[in-house]
Amino acid sequence: MKKIYIVGMGPGKYDQMTIEAVKKIEESDVVIGYTVYTDLIKEIWPDKNCLSTPMTKEYDRCVLAFEEANKGKTVALVCSGDAGVYGLSGLMLGIAPQYKEVEVKTVAGVTAALSGAALIGAPLIHDFAVISLSDLLTPWEKIEKRLECAAIGDFCICLYNPGSKKRADYLEKACEILLKHKDASTPCAIAKNIGRDGEDYTVYTLEELKDIKAGMFETVFIGNSMTKVIDNKLVTPRGYTNE
Amino acid sequence: MKKIYIVGMGPGKYDQMTIEAVKKIEESDVVIGYTVYTDLIKEIWPDKNCLSTPMTKEYDRCVLAFEEANKGKTVALVCSGDAGVYGLSGLMLGIAPQYKEVEVKTVAGVTAALSGAALIGAPLIHDFAVISLSDLLTPWEKIEKRLECAAIGDFCICLYNPGSKKRADYLEKACEILLKHKDASTPCAIAKNIGRDGEDYTVYTLEELKDIKAGMFETVFIGNSMTKVIDNKLVTPRGYTNE
Repeated sequence: MKKIYIVGMGPGKYDQMTIEAVKKIEESDVVIGYTVYTDLIKEIWPDKNCLSTPMTKEYDRCVLAFEEANKGKTVALVCSGDAGVYGLSGLMLGIAPQYKEVEVKTVAGVTAALSGAALIGAPLIHDFAVISLSDLLTPWEKIEKRLECAAIGDFCICLYNPGSKKRADYLEKACEILLKHKDASTPCAIAKNIGRDGEDYTVYTLEELKDIKAGMFETVFIGNSMTKVIDNKLVTPRGYTNE
Repeated sequence: MKKIYIVGMGPGKYDQMTIEAVKKIEESDVVIGYTVYTDLIKEIWPDKNCLSTPMTKEYDRCVLAFEEANKGKTVALVCSGDAGVYGLSGLMLGIAPQYKEVEVKTVAGVTAALSGAALIGAPLIHDFAVISLSDLLTPWEKIEKRLECAAIGDFCICLYNPGSKKRADYLEKACEILLKHKDASTPCAIAKNIGRDGEDYTVYTLEELKDIKAGMFETVFIGNSMTKVIDNKLVTPRGYTNE
């Protein structure tokens, strides 16, 4: 059987991959991914045969994976974090029916919501919503609606893709929506370079967060109405008596 | 420095732990956790010194971790999935200020939303909400409100703790709320025994899901308005042209 593993690499460090992810990459004849991630693969496995397509060529990258598998090669398609959270596993499963002889298996990884939360405390320990602020593939009105619903539902919120050069004011726009339903003093944090050099985080109030410019390598966390700051960490209670 | 690692073990199998989780457990003098998880530890590391407290004694379990660390032992407190998603990292960080000399570090793991999603397809690849149906620590009205907001926001939804003997009709009640705002044909799935013997999943419509009795070892996935079933897998599009 021809095989493709869709592998979530976690935040970036070797140690943060699952053992299964490492095994599947080692087992693969070829690793396909965006260059930032195949560069990481090359650091760990210098002799691994890696292939890439540019940033916006995700569909081509997926087809490349199936074409390589069709040649009889075992393929690992790698994504950062988890391939099932703003990753390529959906696109892959959509193409799969055209390649009936190729078996596709997804290997889950630690997405930035989890690795970032572990760094900044325990912000997502109760019901939470994950929202991407990128409107490249999603209409902004839909993102606004989700921000509003997450705020009204008093979810803990994790924001992916909070900003870029082109989208410099998106975090500000998001905070303005959240501030209609959430307290200005709601604890928030930005985690940056999770699992990479320069890993760090900063705690803000929601009011302060509004004026921060966040970038590509940052993940934003916004507490619910119960979230506290304890020793500079964001902690959301679960409701235990002693909490 | 006295050390506690709060370690997310992932869904259950050794291979689904991160390398860091394995290293921290191996480095620890004592592993503390609910018996189901320390039993798993004993299967992998038969000689490991393990301590437990019963199911509802989470606070005592956390204090036990700090007391053991205070004796100079390196401690791993283990949780299933990720310790920061309905786990014990929040309770731990709340107790930590009483033990200034103990350093606490959280090691992220693969939570059931991610491992279950990898099994059933790519349901959470776009904005999603995670909601627990357990009202043990959360008022049911708050859960209802979050279900309603997640449905109105057209989030993909992952439900933890969808039912138990005492809460046999909670999934039905949840589906009734979701059905007010979501199409009855919305693709859904239940993943069971993720990463354990008997791992499996079943695809339903939201209308069908309403009549299913789900249990403790099951995780429920509900698509957004775009989610499709492809080859018996739930696939949520991200919005790519070719998708």
